[in-house]
Amino acid sequence: MLDICLLGTGGMLPLPDRYLTAMLARFNGRKLLIDCGEGTQVTMRMLGWGYKTLDVICFTHYHGDHVTGLPGLLLTINNTGRTEPLTIIGPPGLRKVVEGLTVVSKDIAFDLELIELSYEKQTLKIGEFVITALPVPHNVKCFAYTIENYRLPKFMVEKAKANNVPQKYWKRLQQGEEVKVGDDYYTPDLVLGDKRKGIKVSYSTDCRPIQELEELIQESDLFICEGMYTDDSYLAQVKKHKHMLASEAAELAKKARVKTLWLTHFSPALPQSYINIDKVKEIFPNTVAGYDRMTTTIDFTEE
Amino acid sequence: MLDICLLGTGGMLPLPDRYLTAMLARFNGRKLLIDCGEGTQVTMRMLGWGYKTLDVICFTHYHGDHVTGLPGLLLTINNTGRTEPLTIIGPPGLRKVVEGLTVVSKDIAFDLELIELSYEKQTLKIGEFVITALPVPHNVKCFAYTIENYRLPKFMVEKAKANNVPQKYWKRLQQGEEVKVGDDYYTPDLVLGDKRKGIKVSYSTDCRPIQELEELIQESDLFICEGMYTDDSYLAQVKKHKHMLASEAAELAKKARVKTLWLTHFSPALPQSYINIDKVKEIFPNTVAGYDRMTTTIDFTEE
Repeated sequence: MLDICLLGTGGMLPLPDRYLTAMLARFNGRKLLIDCGEGTQVTMRMLGWGYKTLDVICFTHYHGDHVTGLPGLLLTINNTGRTEPLTIIGPPGLRKVVEGLTVVSKDIAFDLELIELSYEKQTLKIGEFVITALPVPHNVKCFAYTIENYRLPKFMVEKAKANNVPQKYWKRLQQGEEVKVGDDYYTPDLVLGDKRKGIKVSYSTDCRPIQELEELIQESDLFICEGMYTDDSYLAQVKKHKHMLASEAAELAKKARVKTLWLTHFSPALPQSYINIDKVKEIFPNTVAGYDRMTTTIDFTEE
Repeated sequence: MLDICLLGTGGMLPLPDRYLTAMLARFNGRKLLIDCGEGTQVTMRMLGWGYKTLDVICFTHYHGDHVTGLPGLLLTINNTGRTEPLTIIGPPGLRKVVEGLTVVSKDIAFDLELIELSYEKQTLKIGEFVITALPVPHNVKCFAYTIENYRLPKFMVEKAKANNVPQKYWKRLQQGEEVKVGDDYYTPDLVLGDKRKGIKVSYSTDCRPIQELEELIQESDLFICEGMYTDDSYLAQVKKHKHMLASEAAELAKKARVKTLWLTHFSPALPQSYINIDKVKEIFPNTVAGYDRMTTTIDFTEE
């Protein structure tokens, strides 16, 4: 069971009634954050999921509205008494950005483990989260992310018995581990059933739609995507600044057969009450206009 | 006429219903900000005085809650089209802090003029503002500030005539300028009346009360001061962390004969509805418990 919260829905700058776009994921009590703008720690406080068990922060790119909340968030996490290291993932340049922004928050009790991504598609497993990062076209180096929570196949007692697997190895094999003890060699497939579908959430802001992005987000349970403007007349502007229209996000969602699309990263020129997604829903009916702290819980779909 | 706004009243970390402590001053359309925590640009937006004419930012010290809003604010000022330089003043270490925090906001169209104060009492005049900085005891280098708007004495036509000052020099002398042209030498006192009282606002957070601070704030029109706790039982705690009780701020205000005391920088453990200053007002009756965007206008008192 994966909880997802869209912490904010603004782009460019924080507004009194709209926090900057960021996503918080919670799985088995551990948390992952994508992006951290000015005020992200405040909307996290309003959400109430706590700070202490945040294990991973992923940055899409280093524009101010996606990163300047980092030092404050780290200080607030430090106040919780955290001592476990925290992993920060981002495009090339991560070390310089983190070292700069944390000039006033060096004195924290936990280590930062920085993973500076090479500028290519790659997958990492950190704790409960399988993270895939894809370079996307913006005016600085930028990544889209998918977060997947895999699920091991079901343990099949009859299969284990039929394959003569000693019971003492069942638990390790059930957890996906190979067992080699002396001459004994057993693989998990000897005790496990068919592959089961995991949960997949995709997140993309500040970029143009490209084929690789469509491939990345294929069949996501949830696709959180920038819809800078809901009015298609802004196409030239979003092309120039390498952003995306809500209708372009919907086209992506449709082609990639995602289950649900949440729009976010609205222009400061687009107040919440002016967001009209009627036309966007004609392209992809299961589109929702994001609002701050919109939350959902995604369950594994197979038994 | 000086407008003062207490942009926020919190200490340590930004809360959903309380921005971090910062003060904005406006005089003749130009503005000066003291401290810039996470969210300061947002409460400035709610205030509505604009960003473009902000000429000076003073930092009291470099704890996160007083500085991490800087990169976002600079980016937002940049969006206004500002090209004039902006002055930033702060304790030793300013350059390193600003260079770090602005790692994601280098690409702005105006220059930053950094004035790194030596750790001693000093006075600077920047634009309309005469700024005096005083080192105060905190666990990092910290300054209290006074902001003064001087007022030249009144121009006295009869005095100018009596002193045989040629009329062509009156304007320059009226503006406080000495005039030397050939053998002519005239000083402003030849055309000006008695000294007139200016406006004085003092600002102090994150420190213990000391004699020098009492001297600095003497007869301020307004003294904005930390009152971390309104309950005196926290004395040991504030002494340990070098903060100030509301009652200590009131004692300072009383001794220094300021006109009005605004309390601010409340602990996150002290919600607005729990702030009770009845006992504090017994020490200094003209005490007000600050709230976000509390505003006043201070006029010159003499004709």
